[in-house]
Amino acid sequence: MWFTSDNASGAAPEVMAAVTAANAGYARSYGADAFMDRARDQIREIFEAPEAAVYLVATGTVANALALSLYCPPWGAVFCHQHAHITEDECGAPEFYMHGAKLVLVHGAHGRMDPAALEAAIVKAKGSGVHGVQPGAVSITNVTEAGTVHSVAGVAALAAVARAHGLPVHLDGARFANALVATGATAAEMTWKAGVDVVSFGGTKNGCMGVEAVVIFDPAKVWEFELRRKRGGHLFSKHRFLSAQMVGYLEDGLWLRLAAHANAMGARLARGLAQMPDVTMVHPVEANILFPEWATGTHARLEAAGAAYYPFPAPMGRERARLVASWSTTEADVDWFLAALRG
Amino acid sequence: MWFTSDNASGAAPEVMAAVTAANAGYARSYGADAFMDRARDQIREIFEAPEAAVYLVATGTVANALALSLYCPPWGAVFCHQHAHITEDECGAPEFYMHGAKLVLVHGAHGRMDPAALEAAIVKAKGSGVHGVQPGAVSITNVTEAGTVHSVAGVAALAAVARAHGLPVHLDGARFANALVATGATAAEMTWKAGVDVVSFGGTKNGCMGVEAVVIFDPAKVWEFELRRKRGGHLFSKHRFLSAQMVGYLEDGLWLRLAAHANAMGARLARGLAQMPDVTMVHPVEANILFPEWATGTHARLEAAGAAYYPFPAPMGRERARLVASWSTTEADVDWFLAALRG
Amino acid sequence: MWFTSDNASGAAPEVMAAVTAANAGYARSYGADAFMDRARDQIREIFEAPEAAVYLVATGTVANALALSLYCPPWGAVFCHQHAHITEDECGAPEFYMHGAKLVLVHGAHGRMDPAALEAAIVKAKGSGVHGVQPGAVSITNVTEAGTVHSVAGVAALAAVARAHGLPVHLDGARFANALVATGATAAEMTWKAGVDVVSFGGTKNGCMGVEAVVIFDPAKVWEFELRRKRGGHLFSKHRFLSAQMVGYLEDGLWLRLAAHANAMGARLARGLAQMPDVTMVHPVEANILFPEWATGTHARLEAAGAAYYPFPAPMGRERARLVASWSTTEADVDWFLAALRG
Amino acid sequence: MWFTSDNASGAAPEVMAAVTAANAGYARSYGADAFMDRARDQIREIFEAPEAAVYLVATGTVANALALSLYCPPWGAVFCHQHAHITEDECGAPEFYMHGAKLVLVHGAHGRMDPAALEAAIVKAKGSGVHGVQPGAVSITNVTEAGTVHSVAGVAALAAVARAHGLPVHLDGARFANALVATGATAAEMTWKAGVDVVSFGGTKNGCMGVEAVVIFDPAKVWEFELRRKRGGHLFSKHRFLSAQMVGYLEDGLWLRLAAHANAMGARLARGLAQMPDVTMVHPVEANILFPEWATGTHARLEAAGAAYYPFPAPMGRERARLVASWSTTEADVDWFLAALRG
Repeated sequence: MWFTSDNASGAAPEVMAAVTAANAGYARSYGADAFMDRARDQIREIFEAPEAAVYLVATGTVANALALSLYCPPWGAVFCHQHAHITEDECGAPEFYMHGAKLVLVHGAHGRMDPAALEAAIVKAKGSGVHGVQPGAVSITNVTEAGTVHSVAGVAALAAVARAHGLPVHLDGARFANALVATGATAAEMTWKAGVDVVSFGGTKNGCMGVEAVVIFDPAKVWEFELRRKRGGHLFSKHRFLSAQMVGYLEDGLWLRLAAHANAMGARLARGLAQMPDVTMVHPVEANILFPEWATGTHARLEAAGAAYYPFPAPMGRERARLVASWSTTEADVDWFLAALRG
Repeated sequence: MWFTSDNASGAAPEVMAAVTAANAGYARSYGADAFMDRARDQIREIFEAPEAAVYLVATGTVANALALSLYCPPWGAVFCHQHAHITEDECGAPEFYMHGAKLVLVHGAHGRMDPAALEAAIVKAKGSGVHGVQPGAVSITNVTEAGTVHSVAGVAALAAVARAHGLPVHLDGARFANALVATGATAAEMTWKAGVDVVSFGGTKNGCMGVEAVVIFDPAKVWEFELRRKRGGHLFSKHRFLSAQMVGYLEDGLWLRLAAHANAMGARLARGLAQMPDVTMVHPVEANILFPEWATGTHARLEAAGAAYYPFPAPMGRERARLVASWSTTEADVDWFLAALRG
Repeated sequence: MWFTSDNASGAAPEVMAAVTAANAGYARSYGADAFMDRARDQIREIFEAPEAAVYLVATGTVANALALSLYCPPWGAVFCHQHAHITEDECGAPEFYMHGAKLVLVHGAHGRMDPAALEAAIVKAKGSGVHGVQPGAVSITNVTEAGTVHSVAGVAALAAVARAHGLPVHLDGARFANALVATGATAAEMTWKAGVDVVSFGGTKNGCMGVEAVVIFDPAKVWEFELRRKRGGHLFSKHRFLSAQMVGYLEDGLWLRLAAHANAMGARLARGLAQMPDVTMVHPVEANILFPEWATGTHARLEAAGAAYYPFPAPMGRERARLVASWSTTEADVDWFLAALRG
Repeated sequence: MWFTSDNASGAAPEVMAAVTAANAGYARSYGADAFMDRARDQIREIFEAPEAAVYLVATGTVANALALSLYCPPWGAVFCHQHAHITEDECGAPEFYMHGAKLVLVHGAHGRMDPAALEAAIVKAKGSGVHGVQPGAVSITNVTEAGTVHSVAGVAALAAVARAHGLPVHLDGARFANALVATGATAAEMTWKAGVDVVSFGGTKNGCMGVEAVVIFDPAKVWEFELRRKRGGHLFSKHRFLSAQMVGYLEDGLWLRLAAHANAMGARLARGLAQMPDVTMVHPVEANILFPEWATGTHARLEAAGAAYYPFPAPMGRERARLVASWSTTEADVDWFLAALRG
């Protein structure tokens, strides 16, 4: 039973159908396909941003790295949470695409940067003159790596700190749909209305094969992005296969339905775990990722039962796990896991 | 009627079917999927290289850039044909992935480096001491950008020059299947037996959605490649969708059948063009790409008729075109084009 | 009265004399000068390392960046103190020369990494697999940015952690002479005998115009270093002017005498400050750098009196300063400062 | 007898005197020294550019690389002569500082780009769309690597091509003084009045120890240059030792007198060679560098006599040499060489 990551799931049937349909006949290559026109329109509508530049790439890592490279120079600093995906899980891709810029790590509970700590980090960097790297951008993750969610007000508070210092704001939305569903916010409220300049808008984890949109609210960045994407080897020749995924994903609100389901399965898991006296939660459960803690020996028991998930470092005598529900997790899957845990 | 590029075609039905089949259920992410095990086995068998490292990426540009970055240091030079794809069509991706290495352009007729010119370029570079970039690698393209094909002997001659100077050899095989079909050579004969160290083995242009294999004959390069791929944002989380394309592409010799068809359509086009007195060929036709030259005014007439292809710079009073046949080009398509050209 | 930094001082007369003498006639360029032969011999003798590779550059920043780039790949991590010069005062030069590698910041009191914290940071990095940057090197600073000194045992303890994980060790010795004088250690004891692989051996701050040696104990790194130096624009054509500084600096133990004087002036300052009830020290005084803390208002008073130094962030109601004594600081300078502080 | 390069000479006495004088007492570091104020004023006056940004570095390679990096993005192309110093003699430093931009080589006789060839190269690059690197900048060398000189009109003709395409122009003036003396032009006429945006203004080869100015006519580039210089490890802490060289070099027209002498010695050599029937010149002699060609066996004879210079590749049966006269070459040196050659 798979709770390792939402990327162990396949693609939703509607997404696969859109890809299959797009395969018919010939299409213009390198992003000039009609499916891309449709995907761009959909995303502009969803974000209420008729001028936004919209590009597709196949991985979240490169969506983040390219987005940051548009806003932070090689001698700059990106301020992010100390456990952000961009610093812990991308093997230095942001540094590579930014040609050596530095990630400055900001503390904060449960995966969310503390605004005061962000302010202090920016002020410190500003004081170094030519000897230090220059403040370049702020990157916020929503849903966070701790499985928590920033409210619109939370994003706005961090963005306000950034903007007071003249810094642009990136939002890593690998699980953007889950964050919207969890907060009830619209895409526009969660991004440009809250002070965000560029979004990595994830599709892969939530029912696509491999597609992420980079949404840039400043259309002046268009040409530079295209060159950076091509130069990174991320411009698909048969681009329709990226476009079609995104079209299928966004059509009729599928993306929100899939995320709502994943979050509901996360909540169901959380409710079940809450009833087990020995199980505590490391972070609040706000979307589809859970970090339970339980007694030593549980991992071995669950593994023997057939549960798949990632263990995390824990205090002596205890074990921690990360469990991720996805669009394809069923109620039966959840109940199976809870039963296996009960033993 | 599409003759712009083989990347205007979709995916072959067998490839699409393999992808659809792979979508069922859960799979391990980041390349640990069972489809990848199958693809690796297939490629090792095809290349008669049971120890080869095999990796999948989604674009030919990054396959080339990553392959070269394994072999040429930032202060190195890659020797390639003056019109190679890596220097003219990848927006500096090789330089990006190699952290600033230089491409040294080598002359040669019809897209093939002249071995004596390659030798001279290497010797010159070796004479610069610490003041010049150091010879790093040699890159050969087969099928070439001119639509010609290197025989096994041709590859071996260039590789011999490289190896005499201790340089590794990369083969850009975006149209590798077309080259094999055109020459009757096996994959092993065309690569490691001829002195090639690393191959970009294309799938995209020949019937896949977007997948290329990097085949590295020295297994010691494995871990560095994995880190470079991840850091470039090219490690797919739902990797099965790359693997499955390759499995479907290689199963039962599909890849060679598709390429044989594309080459046959190229030959049919060439035969038809040869019968038109005013049409000459800029380069010999040896695979699925043709460069005809005809009188000024022809482009306008063909475009009006509905033909799509790329014009190329030509002498005064003449026009040049690039026509590409693909796995999905039909005899009727070819005959339609010839009829349109006749007027 | 100058206490801003040891780099506000000029060059020692002996160094200037060596430069002037070296100006006579013609010399081979790019490091093939006879003065370099002499400097190399001196350094090999001082370090008891007859095989060591020795190179000269003009700034400490590039000495560090080049040294690290030899040992840490672009996808690697350098572990250093959270306030190390390489992370706070070099504007990202290490990241630039390492092509985007990451500096992982390690805590520790008074400018010295805590060995347990270093161990934990390395272990954490090792656990990330392909998703995280790979442990690359450990960098130790001696004298530290806090003005404290690592004993030989202290360097050895940190190097032992590094080597247990197979990591090379860099020593940033911008004030190496001051560290040796403070500890009584030999250059060999403080470096390769303690587990150090490469040293930035400073001359600039301690009486030269601008010269630092990079001392590499593994002679296999020679050619790569030469290429990296040239490519960074740091290979001097009239190299004799770097060489001669170093020759003059090392001749007859001048370098140690200059450092002993600077440290003595630091100690004299510290003794004077210790007698003032309101003045406390932020860090122990072990070499030529002091971080006193005093009441608000003192900066203004000292500035008015003509004292020059850098203020540092301090708790409410207090002020902090960094005072640096150099080879040219006199007893009278120190006594003047203490008198000015007394008011 | 030294004719290897102008960098085999030492520093002029006036330059050394200025350095020695600057050593007295304390000075502000990192370019805030009073000598830099003086040097900046001198250069602005010489260039008739009161707003120009002026920075000093120690090598010509980094002056070029930093200047280009200000104007050409990582996905850009710098157009330069096929034998330019930046492509043949800097070990990829421009590519390093530009983060992977490409040098596009332009043909032209005797070290000077042909304007029509430059035009064609730019037009070709513009036609590649997102698939090719983008035109970034044009770099002109004066004195050229062939020892020839661009007239003001020659620089203006190339700059006009660049500017018609919206491209900025860099002038590599490692031997700028020699070019001015040879043409009788002023610094302003040869640079911004002719369409040049940024100059590498050499001091090292013409009587300094190691100092080059980067002169930027657009003051908006100031801060970015400072960060790039620091990050390259090229910001001197004891900066006065760069400043003082430049002050001494420019005072009372020394720089032009030194260059006039070097050119005169070149001319004397040329006159002598012209009288030897078997000696021909590969390039016209217009400044202080000569490329004579003579019969095989001459090298051995001259070397035995004690002449030092660089041999160059030559046709069968012939030998070629590069001879460089400098500020310190004497008439006796020249006559000695001519006598040695006569045998």
